[in-house]
Amino acid sequence: MRPSSRPNDALRRVTLTRGYTKHAEGSVLVEFGDTKVICTASVDESVPGFLKGKGQGWVTAEYGMLPRSTGSRMRREAASGKQSGRTQEIQRLIGRSLRAVVDLGKLGERQIQIDCDVIQADGGTRTASITGAFVALHDAISGLIAQGKLQESPIRDFVAAVSVGVFEGRPVLDLDYLEDSACETDMNVVMTGSGHFVEVQGTAEGVPFSRAELDAMLRLAEQGVGELIAIQKAALAG
Amino acid sequence: MRPSSRPNDALRRVTLTRGYTKHAEGSVLVEFGDTKVICTASVDESVPGFLKGKGQGWVTAEYGMLPRSTGSRMRREAASGKQSGRTQEIQRLIGRSLRAVVDLGKLGERQIQIDCDVIQADGGTRTASITGAFVALHDAISGLIAQGKLQESPIRDFVAAVSVGVFEGRPVLDLDYLEDSACETDMNVVMTGSGHFVEVQGTAEGVPFSRAELDAMLRLAEQGVGELIAIQKAALAG
Amino acid sequence: MRPSSRPNDALRRVTLTRGYTKHAEGSVLVEFGDTKVICTASVDESVPGFLKGKGQGWVTAEYGMLPRSTGSRMRREAASGKQSGRTQEIQRLIGRSLRAVVDLGKLGERQIQIDCDVIQADGGTRTASITGAFVALHDAISGLIAQGKLQESPIRDFVAAVSVGVFEGRPVLDLDYLEDSACETDMNVVMTGSGHFVEVQGTAEGVPFSRAELDAMLRLAEQGVGELIAIQKAALAG
Amino acid sequence: MRPSSRPNDALRRVTLTRGYTKHAEGSVLVEFGDTKVICTASVDESVPGFLKGKGQGWVTAEYGMLPRSTGSRMRREAASGKQSGRTQEIQRLIGRSLRAVVDLGKLGERQIQIDCDVIQADGGTRTASITGAFVALHDAISGLIAQGKLQESPIRDFVAAVSVGVFEGRPVLDLDYLEDSACETDMNVVMTGSGHFVEVQGTAEGVPFSRAELDAMLRLAEQGVGELIAIQKAALAG
Amino acid sequence: MRPSSRPNDALRRVTLTRGYTKHAEGSVLVEFGDTKVICTASVDESVPGFLKGKGQGWVTAEYGMLPRSTGSRMRREAASGKQSGRTQEIQRLIGRSLRAVVDLGKLGERQIQIDCDVIQADGGTRTASITGAFVALHDAISGLIAQGKLQESPIRDFVAAVSVGVFEGRPVLDLDYLEDSACETDMNVVMTGSGHFVEVQGTAEGVPFSRAELDAMLRLAEQGVGELIAIQKAALAG
Amino acid sequence: MRPSSRPNDALRRVTLTRGYTKHAEGSVLVEFGDTKVICTASVDESVPGFLKGKGQGWVTAEYGMLPRSTGSRMRREAASGKQSGRTQEIQRLIGRSLRAVVDLGKLGERQIQIDCDVIQADGGTRTASITGAFVALHDAISGLIAQGKLQESPIRDFVAAVSVGVFEGRPVLDLDYLEDSACETDMNVVMTGSGHFVEVQGTAEGVPFSRAELDAMLRLAEQGVGELIAIQKAALAG
Repeated sequence: MRPSSRPNDALRRVTLTRGYTKHAEGSVLVEFGDTKVICTASVDESVPGFLKGKGQGWVTAEYGMLPRSTGSRMRREAASGKQSGRTQEIQRLIGRSLRAVVDLGKLGERQIQIDCDVIQADGGTRTASITGAFVALHDAISGLIAQGKLQESPIRDFVAAVSVGVFEGRPVLDLDYLEDSACETDMNVVMTGSGHFVEVQGTAEGVPFSRAELDAMLRLAEQGVGELIAIQKAALAG
Repeated sequence: MRPSSRPNDALRRVTLTRGYTKHAEGSVLVEFGDTKVICTASVDESVPGFLKGKGQGWVTAEYGMLPRSTGSRMRREAASGKQSGRTQEIQRLIGRSLRAVVDLGKLGERQIQIDCDVIQADGGTRTASITGAFVALHDAISGLIAQGKLQESPIRDFVAAVSVGVFEGRPVLDLDYLEDSACETDMNVVMTGSGHFVEVQGTAEGVPFSRAELDAMLRLAEQGVGELIAIQKAALAG
Repeated sequence: MRPSSRPNDALRRVTLTRGYTKHAEGSVLVEFGDTKVICTASVDESVPGFLKGKGQGWVTAEYGMLPRSTGSRMRREAASGKQSGRTQEIQRLIGRSLRAVVDLGKLGERQIQIDCDVIQADGGTRTASITGAFVALHDAISGLIAQGKLQESPIRDFVAAVSVGVFEGRPVLDLDYLEDSACETDMNVVMTGSGHFVEVQGTAEGVPFSRAELDAMLRLAEQGVGELIAIQKAALAG
Repeated sequence: MRPSSRPNDALRRVTLTRGYTKHAEGSVLVEFGDTKVICTASVDESVPGFLKGKGQGWVTAEYGMLPRSTGSRMRREAASGKQSGRTQEIQRLIGRSLRAVVDLGKLGERQIQIDCDVIQADGGTRTASITGAFVALHDAISGLIAQGKLQESPIRDFVAAVSVGVFEGRPVLDLDYLEDSACETDMNVVMTGSGHFVEVQGTAEGVPFSRAELDAMLRLAEQGVGELIAIQKAALAG
Repeated sequence: MRPSSRPNDALRRVTLTRGYTKHAEGSVLVEFGDTKVICTASVDESVPGFLKGKGQGWVTAEYGMLPRSTGSRMRREAASGKQSGRTQEIQRLIGRSLRAVVDLGKLGERQIQIDCDVIQADGGTRTASITGAFVALHDAISGLIAQGKLQESPIRDFVAAVSVGVFEGRPVLDLDYLEDSACETDMNVVMTGSGHFVEVQGTAEGVPFSRAELDAMLRLAEQGVGELIAIQKAALAG
Repeated sequence: MRPSSRPNDALRRVTLTRGYTKHAEGSVLVEFGDTKVICTASVDESVPGFLKGKGQGWVTAEYGMLPRSTGSRMRREAASGKQSGRTQEIQRLIGRSLRAVVDLGKLGERQIQIDCDVIQADGGTRTASITGAFVALHDAISGLIAQGKLQESPIRDFVAAVSVGVFEGRPVLDLDYLEDSACETDMNVVMTGSGHFVEVQGTAEGVPFSRAELDAMLRLAEQGVGELIAIQKAALAG
């Protein structure tokens, strides 16, 4: 039995609250159970130096956790003067995941900067971030279209992410903190609306995992991402 | 007329939501109109090195803004590798203000770490932070008493803060962003429940101000802080 | 009785030595008793990026203390790799105070960089710095006029600063280190030659202070700054 | 046809030169074709703070590239003052991969520090690093056994890594730089001698990849790692 | 007797392996006995900001040691976030030494960046670096001539370096680590092919040294550099 | 003719003002002509970690320049967040030079920290710093003896330093800024009272220098240091 009593193939309750803060071009509060992340998309009408004059845009991301989003207080990265390796890994993953579904040529010479800030953590902050950030990005791009700055959307497909793992010997979907800290294997899977893979990152925390376990985890992820994309579509239709 | 149509001596709508996030010993969302700050208080059963073995506690604070809490995106301080001078000024002010009403000897050899994170900014983030942080601190200390770790409260008095300024020639209370960016003088006043001053920080942004203007601003601050402390008391009674 | 036996409303001996070092466009050694600060003004015929092409100038300041300007050696900030929050607060205060009396439009597209370096500290280094820096700035601007680079002076008024506090229950003027480290309240007041306020920064170190104490401190500050401005005028006439 | 004319399932020439430098307890030059990495293992008879007194050891890794190991010179990380996100990702991956096959309890309270320094890069530096680092680690542990500091080896299994990808529509094994910079999908797979997975990290650089492509890449990786572990065994027997 | 049994005036075995790595315009492995340094020269068709538009080129150098190039592991400078004072001294010395024999005007508006990375240290890494870097620089410049980017060589003379010292009371040439860590005086001498001095850096580690000792060390250095330049010439002819 | 009209073998006017600031255990203003440096010696009754429990003391030094000690303003190192390579070289040189004449065993387990801060620069700041720092160190040690903390002085000899160079083809003593910036060769020589060498650091700025020039510079340095040590003795007797 999972600590949360969920079936092995059940997501936590997922909500996407659009327009969560007032300044950003896209602003979404994403909740995967008790994990809560504010995702904003900011439009910048210029591009980083390495893209100047190339006729294409860019999507990038930054990630942070409030110091007391976690059970015991973490050191504030702004105070310690650098972002941890974990933070950098996550923000690079978010950026790559979103760029995989955006036609950067069609975006034009502008950058969309995503910020994912965890205000409460209970496992799965990176997959919640990707799932919420896509909706914030979508809202920012809809704004550009509404203003006439874009004629057609550069978004090619939906993208969402979920974690899967092997917990007490059984594959489970969408790990919360209790599962995440105890599981043998943890895998984050990012997929598109058409069912293709953008990222697969599996790590054996303890015992290495077999090909059969890998296959079972991938099947759960395919199902979970499908449900998440349905939730994204409902939120955007709302 | 003020941009918000408020009377010169009117606060914005102020709310204090306790228990806003689940992990911290005290967690408060404070709203001064559209300014929203998450204030958490974390209990650490040790003290900084300079207080080891001295039989007293410590209260300290850190402050941050989400990159897109503002109208245009600010650089993330964790990414730029240092906290700005403004950030450091504000977090030092929050810490001093709270320590002014805490008997550090009675707190015992433990530290309470305050984190104030602005999720939406519309002027007055430092005064909202102090006002909300006091309630988070109060909740954390109530928890210590409930657990039997403290016999009596080390809190000696309430403390709250408000900004006042001279806007288009007239003293006004609780400046929002539109007023703050246009006013001639900006003053932040931190006061206790018994009507004494903890901090007075007035700055002429443009024209230096007269003693008469200073006196008028102090009167508005005395009134405003009185109202804020009433709101704190109501929240703690709730 | 004050440790120095001074009357409550007496400044320490204040001297301003112009032309203290040979390279800077303005160079002043300011002494408030045993507090000694070298203030230089350096003219830079360009402006920071955010002012390029705006037809106005800028005045900014940096502050430092020699490691052994104090009773026990402080860590060298260049070696520790960052300026403390206190240093940043002080240098921001010096810059704002000077800009309050300079017509930046009349200064033209150039920057005057102030450096205040404490070679011996005995309390009141920030107020001595502002008082001395104004004279260094004045000399640098006189040099620009003499060279024909400016037709008229952009300086609108004098500016000086003094600390006041409540020491053993009584308001006192111009605290030295013994008073500063023991006082209940410490306030730094920056005022112009015409008697207006540029900055008022009061902090209750221990017991919060009453409105009556605040008023008494402000009266002392008004008197003290008046005397300091007379000393500045004498130095510039010398 | 692959740029190197290799069959799709062929590794580059792989060599492992033990005892490459004289100071380290384990020192291996690993070559995957033109990719050359010096891997050293240093024994430290103490553990990091978080493990003190826990009766177990630790294995950690750092990674770097000589500035001109690449086609155009990269900035030296020591000079720029920080390690890139990519560097941190890779060194965390190397450390996790090695820890997955070491019984940290049996290692005792000591740390083995791995350093992987790329002296010439041609794609696959992280998989070469893991493959070479395992041999350096093995040599360091053999030394501890020879000195009587360990009674039995804490190494539970072999571990090696290889990259696979989809290049011009076809799954290929062990990408060199030309393939790596042009491929649609790049996956790094870390496996044990018993054929289980330690890490699977797949990224769609361009077009998201299908489940069928993922399965084909995994099959190539299983074969390739098997060959690499045979090479490790031969090197250790040599 | 020296620890290595060498005569007092004997160099260690010195080898210069050109074309050591494949990407750099010049790439040399220099060995002074067990001291091994990879020296690369990278051509950059631009100059640093302070030389833009001045019609001349630049030669600069960076230096590093692999963490386990030494008997006990050193902290990785990229991880600690800064280069030590020793590293900076050495790389400044290498740069100055090479610039002393290059006509920067004839080099044209381009920069040659030298990297010296120690893969195994046994004393004399800075003198080996200079000696090897000259050959890498020479190869890079020969390449520019071969490509028609330069009509004539800007190299005016050869340059090489050697250490000398007073070990157990006697002047000795080319100190290895055992001598270096025990000697009373250590001097590094950089000279040209025509027998002139570029740098002389002598330090009394223990007892200050006499003028007679200084003269004896200089004589050994003159002889040793002569031999090193012969080895450079042979390598370039090879 | 030298720009200053001094004979080739003449020092500038050198003064040593003891007791220059009031807090430090030793405090000396040293002037070599227009070069002015405040040298303080601070006694710290503990030693750095690497010397704990070894029964010996330490002498170390830091160096800095006020931003406008020079003709054009330099960036403040505390603001830029790091010390330049030049600063580190100089402070390491000062520390080594002083340690060469101190019996660290006799000093006991305490550290003397030297700070050399240039308030006005006109060439030769490092040699002036060494010469002044020795006197500050001597005063600090005399204080320890007077307090009974030391029975006998750990100072074994005097030490002073001077620059020599080749200017317009002729060897000259004690270069000022005009000479220093134009000379072909610049050498700093640190010597003891008994005429032995502690450091010899010669650099060809332009044309490499001959052995004859080196010998001539050494002779000038021997004479100059002799005169400086006489001035030190007179100051300490004063």
